[in-house]
Amino acid sequence: MTAVPRKKSRKGGKDTAKHGGSAANALWGGRFAAGPAAVMEQINPSIGFDRKMYRQDIRGSIAHAGMLAERGIIAREDARAIVKGLKQVEKEIDRGKFEFKVALEDIHMNVEARLNEIIGAPAGRLHTARSRNDQVALDLRLWVRDAIDEIDRALERLQAALIMRAEQHAQTVMPGFTHLQPAQPVTFGHHLLAYVEMAGRDRGRFADARKRLNVSPLGAAALAGTSFAIDPAATAKALGFDTAHANSMDAVADRDFAVEYLAAAALTAVHLSRLAEELVLWGSEQFRFIRLSDAFTTGSSIMPQKRNADAAELTRGKTGRIVGALVALLTVLKGLPLTFNKDMQEDKEPVFDATETLLLSIAATAGMVADMKVNKQAMLAATSGGFINATDLADWLVRKLGMPFREAHHTTGKLVKLAEKRGVALGDLPLEAMRKVDPRITRDVYGVLSVEASVKSRASPGGTAPGNVRLACKEARARFLKARGRQA
Amino acid sequence: MTAVPRKKSRKGGKDTAKHGGSAANALWGGRFAAGPAAVMEQINPSIGFDRKMYRQDIRGSIAHAGMLAERGIIAREDARAIVKGLKQVEKEIDRGKFEFKVALEDIHMNVEARLNEIIGAPAGRLHTARSRNDQVALDLRLWVRDAIDEIDRALERLQAALIMRAEQHAQTVMPGFTHLQPAQPVTFGHHLLAYVEMAGRDRGRFADARKRLNVSPLGAAALAGTSFAIDPAATAKALGFDTAHANSMDAVADRDFAVEYLAAAALTAVHLSRLAEELVLWGSEQFRFIRLSDAFTTGSSIMPQKRNADAAELTRGKTGRIVGALVALLTVLKGLPLTFNKDMQEDKEPVFDATETLLLSIAATAGMVADMKVNKQAMLAATSGGFINATDLADWLVRKLGMPFREAHHTTGKLVKLAEKRGVALGDLPLEAMRKVDPRITRDVYGVLSVEASVKSRASPGGTAPGNVRLACKEARARFLKARGRQA
Amino acid sequence: MTAVPRKKSRKGGKDTAKHGGSAANALWGGRFAAGPAAVMEQINPSIGFDRKMYRQDIRGSIAHAGMLAERGIIAREDARAIVKGLKQVEKEIDRGKFEFKVALEDIHMNVEARLNEIIGAPAGRLHTARSRNDQVALDLRLWVRDAIDEIDRALERLQAALIMRAEQHAQTVMPGFTHLQPAQPVTFGHHLLAYVEMAGRDRGRFADARKRLNVSPLGAAALAGTSFAIDPAATAKALGFDTAHANSMDAVADRDFAVEYLAAAALTAVHLSRLAEELVLWGSEQFRFIRLSDAFTTGSSIMPQKRNADAAELTRGKTGRIVGALVALLTVLKGLPLTFNKDMQEDKEPVFDATETLLLSIAATAGMVADMKVNKQAMLAATSGGFINATDLADWLVRKLGMPFREAHHTTGKLVKLAEKRGVALGDLPLEAMRKVDPRITRDVYGVLSVEASVKSRASPGGTAPGNVRLACKEARARFLKARGRQA
Amino acid sequence: MTAVPRKKSRKGGKDTAKHGGSAANALWGGRFAAGPAAVMEQINPSIGFDRKMYRQDIRGSIAHAGMLAERGIIAREDARAIVKGLKQVEKEIDRGKFEFKVALEDIHMNVEARLNEIIGAPAGRLHTARSRNDQVALDLRLWVRDAIDEIDRALERLQAALIMRAEQHAQTVMPGFTHLQPAQPVTFGHHLLAYVEMAGRDRGRFADARKRLNVSPLGAAALAGTSFAIDPAATAKALGFDTAHANSMDAVADRDFAVEYLAAAALTAVHLSRLAEELVLWGSEQFRFIRLSDAFTTGSSIMPQKRNADAAELTRGKTGRIVGALVALLTVLKGLPLTFNKDMQEDKEPVFDATETLLLSIAATAGMVADMKVNKQAMLAATSGGFINATDLADWLVRKLGMPFREAHHTTGKLVKLAEKRGVALGDLPLEAMRKVDPRITRDVYGVLSVEASVKSRASPGGTAPGNVRLACKEARARFLKARGRQA
Repeated sequence: MTAVPRKKSRKGGKDTAKHGGSAANALWGGRFAAGPAAVMEQINPSIGFDRKMYRQDIRGSIAHAGMLAERGIIAREDARAIVKGLKQVEKEIDRGKFEFKVALEDIHMNVEARLNEIIGAPAGRLHTARSRNDQVALDLRLWVRDAIDEIDRALERLQAALIMRAEQHAQTVMPGFTHLQPAQPVTFGHHLLAYVEMAGRDRGRFADARKRLNVSPLGAAALAGTSFAIDPAATAKALGFDTAHANSMDAVADRDFAVEYLAAAALTAVHLSRLAEELVLWGSEQFRFIRLSDAFTTGSSIMPQKRNADAAELTRGKTGRIVGALVALLTVLKGLPLTFNKDMQEDKEPVFDATETLLLSIAATAGMVADMKVNKQAMLAATSGGFINATDLADWLVRKLGMPFREAHHTTGKLVKLAEKRGVALGDLPLEAMRKVDPRITRDVYGVLSVEASVKSRASPGGTAPGNVRLACKEARARFLKARGRQA
Repeated sequence: MTAVPRKKSRKGGKDTAKHGGSAANALWGGRFAAGPAAVMEQINPSIGFDRKMYRQDIRGSIAHAGMLAERGIIAREDARAIVKGLKQVEKEIDRGKFEFKVALEDIHMNVEARLNEIIGAPAGRLHTARSRNDQVALDLRLWVRDAIDEIDRALERLQAALIMRAEQHAQTVMPGFTHLQPAQPVTFGHHLLAYVEMAGRDRGRFADARKRLNVSPLGAAALAGTSFAIDPAATAKALGFDTAHANSMDAVADRDFAVEYLAAAALTAVHLSRLAEELVLWGSEQFRFIRLSDAFTTGSSIMPQKRNADAAELTRGKTGRIVGALVALLTVLKGLPLTFNKDMQEDKEPVFDATETLLLSIAATAGMVADMKVNKQAMLAATSGGFINATDLADWLVRKLGMPFREAHHTTGKLVKLAEKRGVALGDLPLEAMRKVDPRITRDVYGVLSVEASVKSRASPGGTAPGNVRLACKEARARFLKARGRQA
Repeated sequence: MTAVPRKKSRKGGKDTAKHGGSAANALWGGRFAAGPAAVMEQINPSIGFDRKMYRQDIRGSIAHAGMLAERGIIAREDARAIVKGLKQVEKEIDRGKFEFKVALEDIHMNVEARLNEIIGAPAGRLHTARSRNDQVALDLRLWVRDAIDEIDRALERLQAALIMRAEQHAQTVMPGFTHLQPAQPVTFGHHLLAYVEMAGRDRGRFADARKRLNVSPLGAAALAGTSFAIDPAATAKALGFDTAHANSMDAVADRDFAVEYLAAAALTAVHLSRLAEELVLWGSEQFRFIRLSDAFTTGSSIMPQKRNADAAELTRGKTGRIVGALVALLTVLKGLPLTFNKDMQEDKEPVFDATETLLLSIAATAGMVADMKVNKQAMLAATSGGFINATDLADWLVRKLGMPFREAHHTTGKLVKLAEKRGVALGDLPLEAMRKVDPRITRDVYGVLSVEASVKSRASPGGTAPGNVRLACKEARARFLKARGRQA
Repeated sequence: MTAVPRKKSRKGGKDTAKHGGSAANALWGGRFAAGPAAVMEQINPSIGFDRKMYRQDIRGSIAHAGMLAERGIIAREDARAIVKGLKQVEKEIDRGKFEFKVALEDIHMNVEARLNEIIGAPAGRLHTARSRNDQVALDLRLWVRDAIDEIDRALERLQAALIMRAEQHAQTVMPGFTHLQPAQPVTFGHHLLAYVEMAGRDRGRFADARKRLNVSPLGAAALAGTSFAIDPAATAKALGFDTAHANSMDAVADRDFAVEYLAAAALTAVHLSRLAEELVLWGSEQFRFIRLSDAFTTGSSIMPQKRNADAAELTRGKTGRIVGALVALLTVLKGLPLTFNKDMQEDKEPVFDATETLLLSIAATAGMVADMKVNKQAMLAATSGGFINATDLADWLVRKLGMPFREAHHTTGKLVKLAEKRGVALGDLPLEAMRKVDPRITRDVYGVLSVEASVKSRASPGGTAPGNVRLACKEARARFLKARGRQA
């Protein structure tokens, strides 16, 4: 059933007049001076944003018309006229020659009205066995599916950039941080690959969301299905869906696919925000681990050394926007009875905005990673302070002397205190001094006390050793990059 | 200090080439085929949305120029030229004749660049003792202050509509609900006045936010204040602020005023969502308490009885959007070190969108309330089922027989059961039947058993009695409506 | 590396004294009179909540010890002692005989300290090649995995209840609503099955989250992997993981699995909130479609007819809590640099609280659905008002007379107006009257104008026809219910 | 009217049996094996958390009883007995000797039931002219009011700590950051005072929330007011409220005061998270600006140099929790019809948890600030890199040479490039070299090129100059610290 806007002119029926009347009219001042019609015209139509889905809308209508003809519900020639007309409409919109009309409220009616102008009568048969309720559910599913595909490609590009840099820096040593305090040496390549894993899971979440949403709502009609002998499986197939809906009320009433999509987007944004934070930190005067390229920073007209990591900061900040979109849609749906309620018109803008925001953030991040200049010296120098190799010493005590772990930690603590007192690094403690703490210590211990030895030793599966990193890069290519030629 | 966009053309410095080089370039495919410059051009500029603040920006610059001249920092004739030029710029934008340039990034540089075209050299003196950091903080404060004033007027109009209808229905009886179950009879006017109170507190929150934000950041410059002998108190006064900032770093770094504003907006939206829910319920076939006017509903081309409460549903749904905006900004600010970080550019869009959304929602609600047709018969009929007057009976037992409250409840329970068994209302139980439960009951009890008597009896301050409601309407006018003539 | 709480007694070192000194001490008044140690003791330890993971912690330690022995890193007899000791610890906690010590901060140290008391020296070897960082990541993964399994069973029970009731009501006719306005007749069974689909997708989301989180972090140690020749694949296998982590830094730094879990929970809660809203509506005086059982409602001591749908309202309200938990964790993770930061200790309580809340909500919903009494008469009666069969008439015009859809709608509109004018239902319009609108209409039209005929006709796949519903119930059992015997 | 739990034993009425029966019972397996009663017992009662409000509940009942006696609604001796009994109950709870009973559901019934045991019959009169609906609204208002007072004191202590440290460091120079890049020199005292301003506004928000919530709901009864001749103004006054409610339905239905409170808490938490981020950064190896005291950090058993800023990280992380609580309550209230709905029982736990979390976070922050050791040398050294004094030079050109600002920036840019090329600081450029860029430059310029001169020159109101900071400290004491003796 087609919802139609009521006439917007004030009818001024008797009852209304009695209690509302001119007093009510007095309310319409200021911004909304034109009265209720003006308010409604601003709050009600969706054409201002749902026009983004015109391709999806037309794709769906073409599939629907084809199925109707195939099942003999409309004539083949009508279907042909409809398809031809719809293609023309699409071209007109593509080329910016289509006039969207607010009075027609949404993309569906805008397209159909134009179709009617072009092909006349047969246009009136297109909406047979269909409703705006299943049509809008269809369009948004198709749009989100397209968005997922685009995000997947973008994340793959980000992974490619990360892997490329990880390979270059498989043995670049830097401090690994916990609590933003140097904890153990790691390789920069290993650090970057952590984000490849996160992006991989993000892609997995989008892929799962895609599978789950890939169900056609067409044929659910207004909410109850239809009495026409339609073939929902056929339209589903034509539109690339895995299957048609199992329940018509669910098909038109739920928007969980959009929420799941936004949740995946929010989590991806959070991952990007963590890398963005690191890019900002690494590029600071205090760290100087990297230098972002001119393309992704702004400076100051008078302070040329200033490299404000704008793109990273914006990426970090835009996390809020995407989390906000997720919260918005969860709030919209909370407590809504079945089936369609107009509240659900609020599903599109968060999805559109989050998509654009996320694509930009991913692209900016990939760009920064690909373009940044790495300062190996600064990274290495940052590992020298403190006693970042203390665990290496403790592990040596366990491995070579068979000390229980807790005891080894105790002994290491003593050695560190000794070194601290003398103002030297652990590797600069003379053997005899070490032996006063534990006489079993041998010269062999010095072999584990350089940061290079440290990272090399951490060769357990998943560990930071350069060899691991090189292998992990190769595996990551195989696991994540479809178009491997690109990274040759 | 003025941030300037670095040259966007890829410089391709050696270091970059070494590790990034053509491999990196390979990333720039698809949507962002044009390379990093294109990504940055999309993610970085704010002119797409901050142009909304052009009036505020120009107002601030005029005040700033005046102060600079007053303090002898720039020449008076320069200041005059600047002010004249700025007014011309404002007119150009007002009339849609201004060409916004993305290359100039934001509203501040767009205005200044145009000013320079118009007045030449003196334009270069405007930015003395100022920075984009205090300028943007200023503009947003002014914008939010204006928005608060507009929202305040809109909420006042909503209150006026509610009070007008409450007066008309001061003695219209309906069921008061708890758990969506009829609990005690109330008057419809009383019910509507509950929302007048909520809107009153909402206005109070906006007013408090206004006071707190009404502090000028001008003079904070980039972050540290300035060495020029400026007079921040003067610009503050010229712009209607209560005072100038006490700390320059705080002035440019915080956006708590915007968060507070969004929190007030979110709470207002939640209040509107509750009324919206009731309008939807009351307009349903099952309730039929009200009939929304044509202006705020849509129907169906073939089901003329259908009155979809679109405006109410949209208002209810848009709550999500405003809550999302609040969450977005809280997320943006979380964990940001002082002072300005580019993340904070994400402060404007949630504020702009929430403002427009809220104004529309308030206007739609005021319109629905003013225009709705009230079905007194249906409301009254809905009080007859059940034993909605049971508490009246219990209170009578306490008041007249001196029973302890808990015992009175027990006795009432027995009488209700008796009535239920006989299939009659409490008021239809014969006195002798009542007396078998408690012999002290007198004929006088029948006086409290009608719903009219019930609502009339609840005359405690704040209670639902028609007399109370009429008085409350009068007081509400005095408390909330400045332009009382409007409601005559 | 093991984090140890610094001594909590105020050292009062010179520097501190110099600038803090007694002035600083003066701050410690009121609630935190005992000084910084007291504050830290309240904010820092996690044992108050992470004790919930004791089973997971012990399971992980047993697997770790076994692997260490297998790889010759510790002696087999030590491993045996450790395993035996850990089992005793588990029993002690099971039986409530374990004394948790805040001074030991967390579940890991509490268990290890007790193990040391029981078995002595070998306990000191357990933590070899491990860190609290991979240990806590492991425990939470195992806990969430267990929670997912429990939620999956709970959702299956809910589906079973819905299917059972859907089968009973495969041909019970009720109004299908859009905008809370009657739109088309549907069967109650069909309506209930919509929720079976939602719950099915919810289960799918949890299942996908389970797969993605089912990766062992053990062996990541503090963050860099370890120099011991461990076998992460072995511990992974022993603990039922599909694989071990690919990157040690990612393994200890991310909590996306917990966010994904909370997102699935939030969406499930939103679905439950929609059904809860319907249960509240259906149980209201105005609808009377159902009557919830005593077990899930509360009444009033004096208003026996009142059936407050407490369980439904609580379920609806608790959505907020779970959405809040999701937002909390997204906010925590935003902008955190790698790897472990103490902020991440805030991951557990939202997960624990959301889990308990969701399990309760699902169980309450399943209970309400299973126990509710359905009022078929009220449902049927609610379909009679309005012209709920208007689309049936329009579809007949398309199907039998070959009218274009848009024209059929136009004609139906005329007929509805005619019926409205005469004050009769569409089915009560005489044929001749109909023929005045369109002479091609035949007596055959009356066959589609009853609500029973309407629902029967909507037999398109996924439609509401009773036959469809029965088939859908059968299929839903096969798709969703593993233990089919349960529903016999 | 008093809600009473229905009997929890399954009645198994015919209708239920017919469609639910044993099949339904089969659902009750696993966790909820005990059947619906068990589920309801877990989901329904609030005594597990609302017991926190026992003092508020008793305070309210004492005021209510007094008013009832004053108005002659109950006898004075009954009131005396009630008050005496309630005081005994309070003592029992204070001392942990009170047995809370889940069967009595909430704190109100627990207290009243015990009162009945102690004083017998008169206890039954206490609930006259009252309902659980106004009682619970009252208790929560009182609780939040108390919490606000406690938070206000805690924030004042935090301000005291910040001011104390600001005074000590009124002339300690450090880099002021934008984009985490050094921008201009500031004083550390000035930086700390920025947070004093934020905390001041936070206190203002709580104070405004306090005023707005300080309205008594007592007398609203269930929702409609009461027929007893109560005196709501009297109870309001007795309980320290500014006034009684204006509308009984609003009084029992809204929880906006709790939302406003949570919004103020969330914003405070965001402010704390910013300072926490800075404490973490400043304490890092890379910055070394401060050293947190042992009391608020943890270290490593073998890495003594490690100072994990646990308290700061937890404070930063806990922001998520409080934002989550705010979102939770907004979500709960969205779309709820008037008046009381059981969903609203979900108002308390977010409020309780956020309060405790916030108080801990504030106390931890105050402690860290008071105890931290400041490394002036590191701060000063960090100002030397870059050309942090470039704006000082530009301002000099404007001030002394009368250059337009934009030109001065251009000239400064040239000088900076020159210095960069020569590898020297701006202050080390010979005068002749400067004069080649602009011959008007004089020796006088060197006077503004030291960081000390820079901060000293920024003496505009609100600026960073040491003199300003000292004055600002004095003013801040006067504005914010009531108990000034404390900070002597």
